[in-house]
Amino acid sequence: MGLISLSHGSGGRLTRELIREVFLKELGNEFLHPLTDSAILNISGPRLAFTTDSYVVDPIFFPGGDIGRLSVFGTVNDISVMGARPLSLSLGLIIEEGFALEDLRRIVHSIKVSCEEAGVKVVTGDTKVVERGKGDGIFINTSGIGVLEDGIDLSTGRIEEGDVIIVSGTVGDHGAAIMAKRQDLGFDLEIESDCAPLNHLIGKVLSLGEAIRFMRDPTRGGLAGVLAEIAEDGVEMEVREVDVPIREEVQGFCEILGIDPLYLACEGRVVIVSARKGAEEVLKRLRSHPLGRGASLIGEVIGKGKGGVYLKTAYGTRRVLQLPAEYNLPRIC
Amino acid sequence: MGLISLSHGSGGRLTRELIREVFLKELGNEFLHPLTDSAILNISGPRLAFTTDSYVVDPIFFPGGDIGRLSVFGTVNDISVMGARPLSLSLGLIIEEGFALEDLRRIVHSIKVSCEEAGVKVVTGDTKVVERGKGDGIFINTSGIGVLEDGIDLSTGRIEEGDVIIVSGTVGDHGAAIMAKRQDLGFDLEIESDCAPLNHLIGKVLSLGEAIRFMRDPTRGGLAGVLAEIAEDGVEMEVREVDVPIREEVQGFCEILGIDPLYLACEGRVVIVSARKGAEEVLKRLRSHPLGRGASLIGEVIGKGKGGVYLKTAYGTRRVLQLPAEYNLPRIC
Repeated sequence: MGLISLSHGSGGRLTRELIREVFLKELGNEFLHPLTDSAILNISGPRLAFTTDSYVVDPIFFPGGDIGRLSVFGTVNDISVMGARPLSLSLGLIIEEGFALEDLRRIVHSIKVSCEEAGVKVVTGDTKVVERGKGDGIFINTSGIGVLEDGIDLSTGRIEEGDVIIVSGTVGDHGAAIMAKRQDLGFDLEIESDCAPLNHLIGKVLSLGEAIRFMRDPTRGGLAGVLAEIAEDGVEMEVREVDVPIREEVQGFCEILGIDPLYLACEGRVVIVSARKGAEEVLKRLRSHPLGRGASLIGEVIGKGKGGVYLKTAYGTRRVLQLPAEYNLPRIC
Repeated sequence: MGLISLSHGSGGRLTRELIREVFLKELGNEFLHPLTDSAILNISGPRLAFTTDSYVVDPIFFPGGDIGRLSVFGTVNDISVMGARPLSLSLGLIIEEGFALEDLRRIVHSIKVSCEEAGVKVVTGDTKVVERGKGDGIFINTSGIGVLEDGIDLSTGRIEEGDVIIVSGTVGDHGAAIMAKRQDLGFDLEIESDCAPLNHLIGKVLSLGEAIRFMRDPTRGGLAGVLAEIAEDGVEMEVREVDVPIREEVQGFCEILGIDPLYLACEGRVVIVSARKGAEEVLKRLRSHPLGRGASLIGEVIGKGKGGVYLKTAYGTRRVLQLPAEYNLPRIC
């Protein structure tokens, strides 16, 4: 039939067939193949980064990506912004009864390709199936492990007055792509998600050492969300609106809907707080990588103590950027 | 108000409030508190066990446990049966809009208590909220990391003819508890889940070294499922039905419904394949622990090559135990 049934999640023979024919076929590797309860990994470094994220994005296929791609890169990026090198992922699926097996295959294949792109492996997994109407197609959890080299310690606590704020490319692409796909705007607007793995790009600047204070990928809440979080730790910043790179089509889309692109999620961008001395080198290295071509210096740290984010608008005015109570964009990732 | 809203999952201020007031209050520790994208862990051993499981159990509260307890112990046990010492958990929640905040608090508290019982910590987490009707109350993913000491290598490949099969206690309690709670049988039948952390119990026998060949916790598919999986790796076994410990109320429940308790899930039992020499010591050590009091030697490995499981019934007959296509028990864990 080609539909997922409750039996596929029951742990019986059909579950094992699904694992073999769909998962192992695409994702098989020496760690995953034994199908034991845990993967056994040899880890070189003494410090590990460990993270988890559930992906409930709606729709599951969108321009520039899909839930599988997102679930690999989202977790790879959460590890990468800690300065760690992502190695291994877990993959936990919650599938709704009646989900098309063809779509599952497509997603698993996308996970395979994305893992190759990022240089990571799925080493352990789990599949559950819930009754029709008790889920929504497919939800994916990926947890990830990365190795953190000695001497790397990125945190808001290391940010100093005079530091600069850099973003690696245009902001809001992912959020706009999802929203545009969801809404029928009555005209053709092709916005692609920026969904991409950041580990290789971040690797290019990590070796600059002390100059790199802090990194974060602006997902839910967008650039504004990341800045507001840094501000919560007592950092005062000024950001110049005109210097924030925004795609023309994203800007246009936001103007039509009356939303602020600074709050829209990215899935392939990193915000870096860097020492001013060294910022030119950071920009140069970012721009030498395909994912960092649009890197831009967007603002400065103007003080510490009572945190805050000030936006210098294109009209020369200055307004406070807030972390809103909500983003009105459920299921963006 | 006391209900979860989509805003709680949006990544905005309400998300952060929920994290602080519900999660950090209960689960706060030095790894989780920074609320960074990944937890940073210091790991002593060179080999890690890494596992993931999503919990979709229905109902979420049941005699002997709840989805929180299950999500901690299930993952702790998956690590423990590899011979590894569980250390750190991730916690990924997918909550349906409208879920009672009170229930969430109760579950998070249960997670806290369960972590203390097992001696593990939640070090990283994620919360997503989906629209009403697109989920079912709450789904929980936990991934876990454990350290595997040098020299420990448990696998079906180490099983030899003449080895014995031991189960640490009564089987089918969890499955029967969930089914009894789901069905209205018209009379009072109090069956408690066996939901428990196995790491301390397993620790008692792990030091026996080579005698311990293989371990597995019989969750989905029950004891029969574990035996059928071992058989798939070419191990031939004979199990004596009369020696398999089953609670009277579970046996009675199964007779009423016409189901086989050997296929019912356990959540606090371990199946151990041990060398015959040493089996007495394994039983003695298991029985010295509260969770292993009902430990029983239930069968033998009678050959290798073409695998199979033969059940010697109470009537002296011999039948083949199969891994069924499905277990007809969706959402047991």
